[in-house]
Amino acid sequence: MLSPATAGHDGTVADAAYLDALVTAEVALARAYRELGVAPGDAVDEIETEFGWQGTVRGCREHGVDPSALAAAAVAGGNPVIPLVAMLRERLPRDARVWLHRGATSQDILDTALMLVARDAASRVVASLAHAEVSLRSLARSRRDEVAAARTLTQHAVPTTVGLRAAGWLRGVARARAHLDEVRRRLPAQLGGAAGTLASFAEIAGEDAAAELPGRFAAELGLAAPDAPWHTERWPVTELGDALVQVIDAVGKIAGDVATLSRTEIGELAEGAGGGSSAMPQKRNPAASVLIRSAALRAPQLGATLHLASALAVDERPDGAWHAEWPTLRELLRLALGASAHAADLVAGLHFDTDAVARNLAATDGLIVAERLSLVLGSARAAELVASGGSLPDRLADLPEVAALAAERGVPVPEVVVDLLDPARYTGLAGNLVDDAVAIADPPHSLTQTEDQP
Amino acid sequence: MLSPATAGHDGTVADAAYLDALVTAEVALARAYRELGVAPGDAVDEIETEFGWQGTVRGCREHGVDPSALAAAAVAGGNPVIPLVAMLRERLPRDARVWLHRGATSQDILDTALMLVARDAASRVVASLAHAEVSLRSLARSRRDEVAAARTLTQHAVPTTVGLRAAGWLRGVARARAHLDEVRRRLPAQLGGAAGTLASFAEIAGEDAAAELPGRFAAELGLAAPDAPWHTERWPVTELGDALVQVIDAVGKIAGDVATLSRTEIGELAEGAGGGSSAMPQKRNPAASVLIRSAALRAPQLGATLHLASALAVDERPDGAWHAEWPTLRELLRLALGASAHAADLVAGLHFDTDAVARNLAATDGLIVAERLSLVLGSARAAELVASGGSLPDRLADLPEVAALAAERGVPVPEVVVDLLDPARYTGLAGNLVDDAVAIADPPHSLTQTEDQP
Amino acid sequence: MLSPATAGHDGTVADAAYLDALVTAEVALARAYRELGVAPGDAVDEIETEFGWQGTVRGCREHGVDPSALAAAAVAGGNPVIPLVAMLRERLPRDARVWLHRGATSQDILDTALMLVARDAASRVVASLAHAEVSLRSLARSRRDEVAAARTLTQHAVPTTVGLRAAGWLRGVARARAHLDEVRRRLPAQLGGAAGTLASFAEIAGEDAAAELPGRFAAELGLAAPDAPWHTERWPVTELGDALVQVIDAVGKIAGDVATLSRTEIGELAEGAGGGSSAMPQKRNPAASVLIRSAALRAPQLGATLHLASALAVDERPDGAWHAEWPTLRELLRLALGASAHAADLVAGLHFDTDAVARNLAATDGLIVAERLSLVLGSARAAELVASGGSLPDRLADLPEVAALAAERGVPVPEVVVDLLDPARYTGLAGNLVDDAVAIADPPHSLTQTEDQP
Amino acid sequence: MLSPATAGHDGTVADAAYLDALVTAEVALARAYRELGVAPGDAVDEIETEFGWQGTVRGCREHGVDPSALAAAAVAGGNPVIPLVAMLRERLPRDARVWLHRGATSQDILDTALMLVARDAASRVVASLAHAEVSLRSLARSRRDEVAAARTLTQHAVPTTVGLRAAGWLRGVARARAHLDEVRRRLPAQLGGAAGTLASFAEIAGEDAAAELPGRFAAELGLAAPDAPWHTERWPVTELGDALVQVIDAVGKIAGDVATLSRTEIGELAEGAGGGSSAMPQKRNPAASVLIRSAALRAPQLGATLHLASALAVDERPDGAWHAEWPTLRELLRLALGASAHAADLVAGLHFDTDAVARNLAATDGLIVAERLSLVLGSARAAELVASGGSLPDRLADLPEVAALAAERGVPVPEVVVDLLDPARYTGLAGNLVDDAVAIADPPHSLTQTEDQP
Repeated sequence: MLSPATAGHDGTVADAAYLDALVTAEVALARAYRELGVAPGDAVDEIETEFGWQGTVRGCREHGVDPSALAAAAVAGGNPVIPLVAMLRERLPRDARVWLHRGATSQDILDTALMLVARDAASRVVASLAHAEVSLRSLARSRRDEVAAARTLTQHAVPTTVGLRAAGWLRGVARARAHLDEVRRRLPAQLGGAAGTLASFAEIAGEDAAAELPGRFAAELGLAAPDAPWHTERWPVTELGDALVQVIDAVGKIAGDVATLSRTEIGELAEGAGGGSSAMPQKRNPAASVLIRSAALRAPQLGATLHLASALAVDERPDGAWHAEWPTLRELLRLALGASAHAADLVAGLHFDTDAVARNLAATDGLIVAERLSLVLGSARAAELVASGGSLPDRLADLPEVAALAAERGVPVPEVVVDLLDPARYTGLAGNLVDDAVAIADPPHSLTQTEDQP
Repeated sequence: MLSPATAGHDGTVADAAYLDALVTAEVALARAYRELGVAPGDAVDEIETEFGWQGTVRGCREHGVDPSALAAAAVAGGNPVIPLVAMLRERLPRDARVWLHRGATSQDILDTALMLVARDAASRVVASLAHAEVSLRSLARSRRDEVAAARTLTQHAVPTTVGLRAAGWLRGVARARAHLDEVRRRLPAQLGGAAGTLASFAEIAGEDAAAELPGRFAAELGLAAPDAPWHTERWPVTELGDALVQVIDAVGKIAGDVATLSRTEIGELAEGAGGGSSAMPQKRNPAASVLIRSAALRAPQLGATLHLASALAVDERPDGAWHAEWPTLRELLRLALGASAHAADLVAGLHFDTDAVARNLAATDGLIVAERLSLVLGSARAAELVASGGSLPDRLADLPEVAALAAERGVPVPEVVVDLLDPARYTGLAGNLVDDAVAIADPPHSLTQTEDQP
Repeated sequence: MLSPATAGHDGTVADAAYLDALVTAEVALARAYRELGVAPGDAVDEIETEFGWQGTVRGCREHGVDPSALAAAAVAGGNPVIPLVAMLRERLPRDARVWLHRGATSQDILDTALMLVARDAASRVVASLAHAEVSLRSLARSRRDEVAAARTLTQHAVPTTVGLRAAGWLRGVARARAHLDEVRRRLPAQLGGAAGTLASFAEIAGEDAAAELPGRFAAELGLAAPDAPWHTERWPVTELGDALVQVIDAVGKIAGDVATLSRTEIGELAEGAGGGSSAMPQKRNPAASVLIRSAALRAPQLGATLHLASALAVDERPDGAWHAEWPTLRELLRLALGASAHAADLVAGLHFDTDAVARNLAATDGLIVAERLSLVLGSARAAELVASGGSLPDRLADLPEVAALAAERGVPVPEVVVDLLDPARYTGLAGNLVDDAVAIADPPHSLTQTEDQP
Repeated sequence: MLSPATAGHDGTVADAAYLDALVTAEVALARAYRELGVAPGDAVDEIETEFGWQGTVRGCREHGVDPSALAAAAVAGGNPVIPLVAMLRERLPRDARVWLHRGATSQDILDTALMLVARDAASRVVASLAHAEVSLRSLARSRRDEVAAARTLTQHAVPTTVGLRAAGWLRGVARARAHLDEVRRRLPAQLGGAAGTLASFAEIAGEDAAAELPGRFAAELGLAAPDAPWHTERWPVTELGDALVQVIDAVGKIAGDVATLSRTEIGELAEGAGGGSSAMPQKRNPAASVLIRSAALRAPQLGATLHLASALAVDERPDGAWHAEWPTLRELLRLALGASAHAADLVAGLHFDTDAVARNLAATDGLIVAERLSLVLGSARAAELVASGGSLPDRLADLPEVAALAAERGVPVPEVVVDLLDPARYTGLAGNLVDDAVAIADPPHSLTQTEDQP
């Protein structure tokens, strides 16, 4: 209710989702033992059945554990795995019990569950961004040559195009999406035992089977096999965090531009479904932009916390740093889910006011092309023109340089004046840059990828 | 479940608590209008009754609004007040409807509700800290003269006392508690209308009544009267945030020391109720310290977000900065609640191992008093002694400077040697510093203050 | 060169200033010993003379130590005090040497020096803010009744006044200035010896003199006497940091508004001395606002680092946290110096374009008073009006409610229409709020305070 | 002097280095024009000669511009390029002047210069890390089988090996190095003109040449060719920042472990060149670890500032966000330079105390293998053993389970007892994990890469 930026996107990262992932990790470990011929098939069958295993992609969803009972039990020990294992074992026949959580440490299960949740959440973020890209590509293409004022340090600078602005947004989103997509595909399972030596697994299964266990465990879950236990080398978490923040940066930039261009005085853009006001009936607020921007102001500091936790991961399990990761990563996932979904809707529904674009472009009475005049006439002459006041076309028409140009081109002076003052003739390579951005291949796997989401 | 540092402390800052506070603020506004003779008594009576007003301290608790229905409705508009007002108005007779949310803007209600929740949460934090101070005062007093090794940059440095360490913790906590206590007493209500001019209220009630309305509204809620609307001057939020972070810093310092002194090799301290391990039966983890430290690694970055939001509070209501405050402040309150409660339990239950303290103090074979030797014998001679190896008492007994001291004091050389090497004779003003810290008056109002909590 | 936000303000916090402060602290300690009758007058006279003591306010400025030689020597040991003491002692006669740095630990000198530099820098910040307040008070007063569009979530909302906007800025700055002023007056000296027990000082001077030494030391420096050593209770640093960030927030809010209101399309404001462009002769950038905003985006994270350092200040001197404070606090001081000085210039030189203010106010053809129409005519009727299009005055004149109002007031319908649509009649208590803000007493001590600056 | 963590590493990122890079960028632009046949050879020759061009790798070093004069001039306009161009042009003959900074905007030059400095600094960081890896690989290999206590949440947990700890450090450093190495190789030049359209370049050189100009410009500098101007799509900056923070995390983890394992009571490690104390002659502080940790506490928040700047990069050049990047990126580079160099020295000089390792391993009288007992004997029996006290070997020898094991293995009971309690037989796959880590190929290109550094 108080996190509108993330509202509607909590499901993927809710307590229930984490609980599903914890149970899924426990069952997958038993399955991995069976696959390697270590655990008896019957015991693992019991475990699978009791906790509702539904396959690698879906994991366990109807396991019958109550999230709030577990949450209450988790307070004392500082992590939820210890009480969860107790709850799960109670429901198993004696022979199967020992194969649940066999040899594992809490961190194996919790880190793996975090990666499962992150993988699913990241898939949704990637899908939202891919949808946003479709809209942005279309915007960039359709408005490729629509000239608009470019603004630097809040002031009109030179002409640009609406399409180039959209192409910039597209580049930022595509880069962030590709980065997150790559990171999510290599999110590793965790399996190292109490201190990352896999000693318990070697004791249980022998060294050879123990060496295969992490990879088998990861395969059961559809996660990447870890190079080594990463209990205290936390780059899988920070690389994920950085990619999520980059996503929010990219859509934050869009939201900032939309909020600015939606200003009453500017009015070049409006959100398709702006928010209302409790008191002012006429208002149409850039509500999605506001929510995305609120996420963008929060995400970087959450990313910083993940890095701090990584740097402070002392010993073979640290005294606080690891625990700081869980809620931070979850909130970052939530922000990325909310911001990317809002962004997809935002860019799909944008209204452009072509008249406002043209009106603003003309607002400085030709000074928007002052840089060009500077290049054509020399900077001293251009500065003089800018300073002199009066009608710019008239002043231009009187200049000897313009007369010379007209002669050179074999056209009348007024034609040169019109050319020099036409913003559309000073957009440089904007069109090419749009074409390049749009030509970045459609990301088909990302869009279809979402099918394999739970 | 994934935020063990805050588990069990969510109630105070849960969605339900915010919803109570929102409804409370709406009812208080109607009451304020009635008090000023603006709203008809009957209409306000209807409002009070329908939404379960229970007085200034308790506000509205049984108002019948479903938090999840509201949360769902809040997504579209970006804030929960607009759908809440609609839900509430539906339940009122026509004549009363107009007096609900009359003249208010969403921010009036939301900022005020945030302050109500913050006030209640901060009261609990203050109470937890006051309890911690009782334990710390007692620890400092009872262990005033228990000599221990002081460590700087991880190395034994000189002697200190267990009591002085506790006195330092006490000073930090007392300072943070006093600071938060002061801040929470001046948390202001918000009432400014759409843009902080109070124009709507002046239209409704006339200028004179409108001028009195914010103070009356605040009084209904037990909040401080605002100097002026603070829609975009956000120091009430950042000053609160800074005070909360300071609280977490203070208990974080304690937790860091406890975690360090609990190390297997150091063993001077143990938590009364250490956490167990899912795999290692012998372990007794400093679980509360770990949770407090995890909060301490997260809180500063949340405080930073509040400052960013304050600095970016442009216009008469900003385009994202305000929305970034809500979940951030809430999480910071949650961390402060959890960390302070864990700290109160932690210091109440600390086990001290006096033997370990003594063993560690002796671990450097007398070098713990090397600084004193340096002062008494000169730094060159002391450096020589440290470098030479062998039995320090024997080497000391052979020194001409020690013979001279013995002669000067009229005692045998061995007595001088014993004196020079006794850590208990090199604790300086530790005892006085403990006495000073303990003499800081007991904070009676804070402890009793908690009575007026809901 | 790359920190334009702070350029020109480095002197106060440059290496040379820190070096002056380090030497000053060393000399002040010798002086304090003499005052207490512990150190021989001759030795301390030598120390004072050799290192150029110039009194409590100015300290030592011409001490002859080369900052770059010291910087080079400081690398190995991790702090500059050890090599500094060696350099200084070399220059003293044998008898005086022992009284330099006598009983002190590096942290005593370094923390004290940081507080000296912070005190001087904070005084300048307070002075800049006080100057800004003079301008803001004048602005608020002179533009008290100049009606302008208030904007919320980037959209025109209701009328406000230019004066009320300035009054809000004034409140934010005055609050931050008062806070910093209070903090800087209680910045404490540090004197605790190796681990905060003052054992070395007690060994040297006896317990009674040692107990007086910190207060005497502080008095020599014009700092506050510490309650106790604060080697690992770092609230003096975080409270200073928070106050500095609050200052930057307050001026950041101003800069954000100025940047927005300076936009080409809005044009209500311009900086007196806008920055030029390397390529576009016509541009007048809000250069000071940009620099202040860049500081405002950086400061909160520096403040967070100070809090982290405080929370992680384990043992009797921590293993990294203390060292993280020095450059962070320095950069925060530098940002506050730069941002406050730029802000003072900015508000002193602001240009207002009254025509633009009026033009923008009229831009929504009367919808700026839609909230008032909603209150007077009812929200349903107002929503209808807003939705219907056409001339608002004409539509209003045709309404039965308006006819009724005209009858009630005994005036013709057009007069009611004019009244209802006049933004100047819907500014509520803006004037009173300006008067209140301006009436906050001029801060004479702060302005004169700057006289006692070095 | 106050940044010991970065002392000695300022040169690479000092004002002078940035100035060199700015001049280099300006000259490279002229060269690129010449290469494309746009600028006359003579003019560009003049420019090259006057400003001391020394080739793609070295750029301009003896250009004769005074950094402090430029710094002073940079204050007013908010960036140093405008006054720099004026200073440079003054020194050129009239014909050459126009070809300096031709068509460029300040951001083109400044962003490019930042990337040049970043490239050089990152090369040094990569080289330091590569050196650290050599030491770590050697440590991991030579101590592959040296058994030590693993600690989780500060408590002894199970056995591990010194080699596995080093292998973990190695993995973290190698990952961070590879990441930074990849990022630094794709650092792009910036060339887009006033608003990223390249309109000025198209005006000057025609569209075709303008399209080739950025790539040519980048080639002159040894930077990557940009896909498109990145004036407001700032992922080149945040991806660099994230990689730098990851480096500091990785060495921060090492420093945290070294600081912990150097504790007086633990003593398993000592820095080769520990720092001294100004007062305590016996101390040998883990000085490098302290400095690295101080960097690790600061870096994440600087990284967060870069992300904020990216998210807030509105318009075609933002109103503060861009300016916030410069000093932040510079400080992050400085921290990475200092931390990586200290880390290389630290790991090269580490002293291991094998006796301390063994003593600590034995400190819990066999409980370090409690997990194994739990697996072999069942968790109930193991918990009983742990709780019962007395001699663990004796209690084990009396157990029927142990008798059964002895019978099963055909060995005497004492042999089974010795086996069960031997930590060296419970290190799981530690040896294999070390072998894997060490087998990661030596990074020859990184070490040789440093040859192409200036």
